[in-house]
Amino acid sequence: MIKLTFTKKLIAAAACVAALAAPAQAADNDKVYRLKMAETWPSNFPIFGDAPRNMAKMAETMSNGRLKITIDSKNKHKAPFGIFDMVRAGQYDMGHSASYYWKGKVPNTLYFTTMPFGMTAPEQYGWFYNGGGMELMEKVYSKYGLMSFPGGNTGNQMGGWFQKEINSLDDLQGLKMRIPGFAGEVLAKLGAKPTNIPAGELYTALERRTIDALEWVGPSLDLRMGFHKIAPYYYTGWHEPATELQFLVNERTWKKLPADLQEILRVAMRTAAYDMYIQSYHMSAENWDLMKKAHPDIQIKSFPADVIGAMKTANTELLKEKAAADPLAKEIITSQAMYMQKSRVWTDISDKAYLNSLSSQ
Amino acid sequence: MIKLTFTKKLIAAAACVAALAAPAQAADNDKVYRLKMAETWPSNFPIFGDAPRNMAKMAETMSNGRLKITIDSKNKHKAPFGIFDMVRAGQYDMGHSASYYWKGKVPNTLYFTTMPFGMTAPEQYGWFYNGGGMELMEKVYSKYGLMSFPGGNTGNQMGGWFQKEINSLDDLQGLKMRIPGFAGEVLAKLGAKPTNIPAGELYTALERRTIDALEWVGPSLDLRMGFHKIAPYYYTGWHEPATELQFLVNERTWKKLPADLQEILRVAMRTAAYDMYIQSYHMSAENWDLMKKAHPDIQIKSFPADVIGAMKTANTELLKEKAAADPLAKEIITSQAMYMQKSRVWTDISDKAYLNSLSSQ
Repeated sequence: MIKLTFTKKLIAAAACVAALAAPAQAADNDKVYRLKMAETWPSNFPIFGDAPRNMAKMAETMSNGRLKITIDSKNKHKAPFGIFDMVRAGQYDMGHSASYYWKGKVPNTLYFTTMPFGMTAPEQYGWFYNGGGMELMEKVYSKYGLMSFPGGNTGNQMGGWFQKEINSLDDLQGLKMRIPGFAGEVLAKLGAKPTNIPAGELYTALERRTIDALEWVGPSLDLRMGFHKIAPYYYTGWHEPATELQFLVNERTWKKLPADLQEILRVAMRTAAYDMYIQSYHMSAENWDLMKKAHPDIQIKSFPADVIGAMKTANTELLKEKAAADPLAKEIITSQAMYMQKSRVWTDISDKAYLNSLSSQ
Repeated sequence: MIKLTFTKKLIAAAACVAALAAPAQAADNDKVYRLKMAETWPSNFPIFGDAPRNMAKMAETMSNGRLKITIDSKNKHKAPFGIFDMVRAGQYDMGHSASYYWKGKVPNTLYFTTMPFGMTAPEQYGWFYNGGGMELMEKVYSKYGLMSFPGGNTGNQMGGWFQKEINSLDDLQGLKMRIPGFAGEVLAKLGAKPTNIPAGELYTALERRTIDALEWVGPSLDLRMGFHKIAPYYYTGWHEPATELQFLVNERTWKKLPADLQEILRVAMRTAAYDMYIQSYHMSAENWDLMKKAHPDIQIKSFPADVIGAMKTANTELLKEKAAADPLAKEIITSQAMYMQKSRVWTDISDKAYLNSLSSQ
């Protein structure tokens, strides 16, 4: 650093004496890097949309205005599920989305958001940052000229809103449920009928019993959807224990940034991701309190042990198929399973034991 | 930001034309701020000592060397519990320690680390950042010219190593246990004899039964102490559910920093704190695995429900006394209790329900 300062001063002196243009380093200190980011979410989408804005604000302030990131929501770019392609092509420098949205295009992107019966938020951050997760994510994304970073965690997602109780595996037969992705595949193996329905039609579909159940996120984002007004059972989660959103960065953009701005961007993304986890936790607590007060009859339910057991078996079978079909998938699935094994033992004797000891009061 | 850049260029042009000294803003861009930090921990102390180093490294890289923070460990400054005073006096610009160490000097600093039967880590971060905790901490620290920030969380601390089982309240009578602070007061109310013993003498004291039990941190830092070799019972936690360390900053130092470096420092501290939480979680999982493999006979125990109940009652009584004696203490205790009430309901139906549904498999 001393060397840099020295060089800068020398160049600055030379520039003044010779009445030349501004010195190279000084020019760079003034240079404003303007990055364009596309997000999957609509304008003013709470929590998910706050994370990239929190990130951009930190980056701009820390860089004294040298790093300016503008964010286009889906209302503008019209391609909520085109973020991967747009950032890859350089149409946008960055994206804010979720890795599992790209599984149709690049199957191994599936594993970097959350998995049914997978890790909790602190376990998964441990895997990303201390357990090899970031390296595996790089292995998947680097061949597309993309860098992927954690982009904010929703915490444990609720199992969803149900019109009728699930008391046995029989109750899953033919159950029409809006539940996309890998979890939908798990339920399909057990006889349910997973469907996908646009967000704007979900309320009516559940109200008119076009579907029997649906999952969305949790109280943090379910409140505004209004499902608590029309469904009596709110099931606890199994399918998305720690949904981590994603920041995508075009590698060419990254390489153009000076080292200090790269670190500013890296740290701003990392902090915004953690901050969203805490904000989601907070808003879930606040919004569940509001729901429960307005509708005291809502019943919190957990699936019976044999239903959970069957879901878990189906999930394990699906993972085995994925691992057998692709060596990199196998490497990721094994890494996650090994990490979770150790960290879950710790979770069970720390937070879980603590919470259970208090519940027995 | 546009205005700033414009001003800089104008000044720069004027400086060159008039062959004056380097322009004010450009000079500021070159100015290196050297801050001195004192930490409570000895040299090379793992995890706790990593947090300030991680923070300093991020700050230096993000600022392109304009913010340089050097760290003195207790081996150098010899005053592990003098950090508050040294930072207040300006002898150091910053400190890394824990707020509850200052309770003898400023009683209301007690509440910003962790409390028996208090919040878990995500609940407590929610309180700090979204529930008014930072504002209350400022209320306590600002009158001493100090700013306090979260400095890294250990996660749930274990209840400690015991030579004999605790099966009833009778077993607490006369129990000699190394357990400092507020938790020690709780146990004293139930007939135990809390003692404090220097770290270097703990192993021998427990081995020779000079004490019957002790608590330290958890597997992350207990492994190197070796207690698992000499005590058969490892109790789950109740007294420090989410111990948050602390960054202290002298307010005069803070005010001297330009706005971009203030934000760099704020974000670096915030990220380093979150990162330490994840690192602690990771190391607890790793080290418990090592302990358990080397000593498979270690038994994990939880205190019986009536013992937990009595501890909780004693804790509530002590908190009531504190609240009655000081209006600001009352404000903090009430804020924490209200926040925990809502957030614990959420924790119970999210992470706890998820973990319990899997344990029943």
